[in-house]
Amino acid sequence: MNCILLPAANFSNDTAQIIALPQITHVTDVLVAAVGEPLKIGQIGGHLGTAIIDDIKPDRIQLREVTLRMPPPPKLDLTVVLALPRPKVLRRLIMDMTALGVRDIILINSYRTQKSYWQSPMLARLDEFVLEGLQQGVDTIMPRISLQKRFKPFVEDELARLMTDRAIVAHPYGAQSLAQYLKKQYLKNQRLQNQSVSTLPSLVCIGAEGGWIDYEIELLASQGCEAVHIGPRILRTEAAVNALLGQWLL
Amino acid sequence: MNCILLPAANFSNDTAQIIALPQITHVTDVLVAAVGEPLKIGQIGGHLGTAIIDDIKPDRIQLREVTLRMPPPPKLDLTVVLALPRPKVLRRLIMDMTALGVRDIILINSYRTQKSYWQSPMLARLDEFVLEGLQQGVDTIMPRISLQKRFKPFVEDELARLMTDRAIVAHPYGAQSLAQYLKKQYLKNQRLQNQSVSTLPSLVCIGAEGGWIDYEIELLASQGCEAVHIGPRILRTEAAVNALLGQWLL
Repeated sequence: MNCILLPAANFSNDTAQIIALPQITHVTDVLVAAVGEPLKIGQIGGHLGTAIIDDIKPDRIQLREVTLRMPPPPKLDLTVVLALPRPKVLRRLIMDMTALGVRDIILINSYRTQKSYWQSPMLARLDEFVLEGLQQGVDTIMPRISLQKRFKPFVEDELARLMTDRAIVAHPYGAQSLAQYLKKQYLKNQRLQNQSVSTLPSLVCIGAEGGWIDYEIELLASQGCEAVHIGPRILRTEAAVNALLGQWLL
Repeated sequence: MNCILLPAANFSNDTAQIIALPQITHVTDVLVAAVGEPLKIGQIGGHLGTAIIDDIKPDRIQLREVTLRMPPPPKLDLTVVLALPRPKVLRRLIMDMTALGVRDIILINSYRTQKSYWQSPMLARLDEFVLEGLQQGVDTIMPRISLQKRFKPFVEDELARLMTDRAIVAHPYGAQSLAQYLKKQYLKNQRLQNQSVSTLPSLVCIGAEGGWIDYEIELLASQGCEAVHIGPRILRTEAAVNALLGQWLL
């Protein structure tokens, strides 16, 4: 937790209250902060800032001198379409994509997504993982998350609408590397005298363990998603998501 | 496990044996492979290839028609100096850096590394995590890993020798972004008509949770390590390592 985010209801004039147990424990046990000390805080959906600890009780920390003046960092201009992963890695993936600043996350079914994943109790906890990600990444704006249980109708009917710009699908057997793709976009931008435009796509599809099957790659391609690979090495889904999205941080 | 790696001793002519329990379980329970089916295998330190399952017993899988003809992918021209992280995340970090193809990994002490981390039993299991990383990334060459318990002597006496080329230290409060750093290198290469040379450094220092303290950044800078940041967002160590090293995959 690099900041503590509170809902608007917990603020009143220049005071605020921390009542969520994980946040209280963080202040008392990790930060080992005492009355009179400052805290980095933020309002969910609002600004970031600081407050002074006024009182610490086991079930409530009272804050005073709350000032929230810093806007959150801009979101990445990016939609990630992710094949629903194993519940065990879902938490960290949602947390990391949120911390990285992804604006839209779409969890989608895929051939290699096991049916049982959609019944996981972890799916009811997405808001919690998002909050963890925001507090890690020091942001206040939640990404939009949607669940799409049917691959074909989603790709055929909704993907095009979401593709405001170029799109790629990460695929170890893609014909071109991401570097080749970016170079192609760079040359295109140059030709169109559009050099201020990013060479990065605005939508990325990432498979779960085992990746996409050919049918899925073809259906995505029919909607304009180009397959790109990031080299011969196969990464864990989490590692692949971070390695790929790291390109957007530059 | 995207391939099964065996030590040289397990091979004999065109046959081989799998005797490690996690590998046997992977073949029988995850791949659900049967006698007569092919397996992707490799020899630790050697080539990659395939074999046919000849016999399956609870404690031993016999392979025939072993052919190992494919060389492993090239290593990244990269040394990662990583502040020893919490034992809990050490496994995934070693696994991911190995899968990404880092050639040299140096685990170093830092002000924010807790002393107890150096006593963790996880440190005795590095070879196991490396094997997991190689089997994930489909590589056979182990990274070199060294442990450096003393920050100052290491930085002052050994770092310069390791810095065959440029070096950076990841630091949220670095004066320049990685993008600015890479652009600077690009312009320098252009000026020196060295455009085939990579703009990426060959050594990267990455802190553990909480990052580096000023003294550490200054000592690293005195040896020529430039501080770079990757934006205002603070990432988990694992996410940061993958996001940063993702630049080397292009």
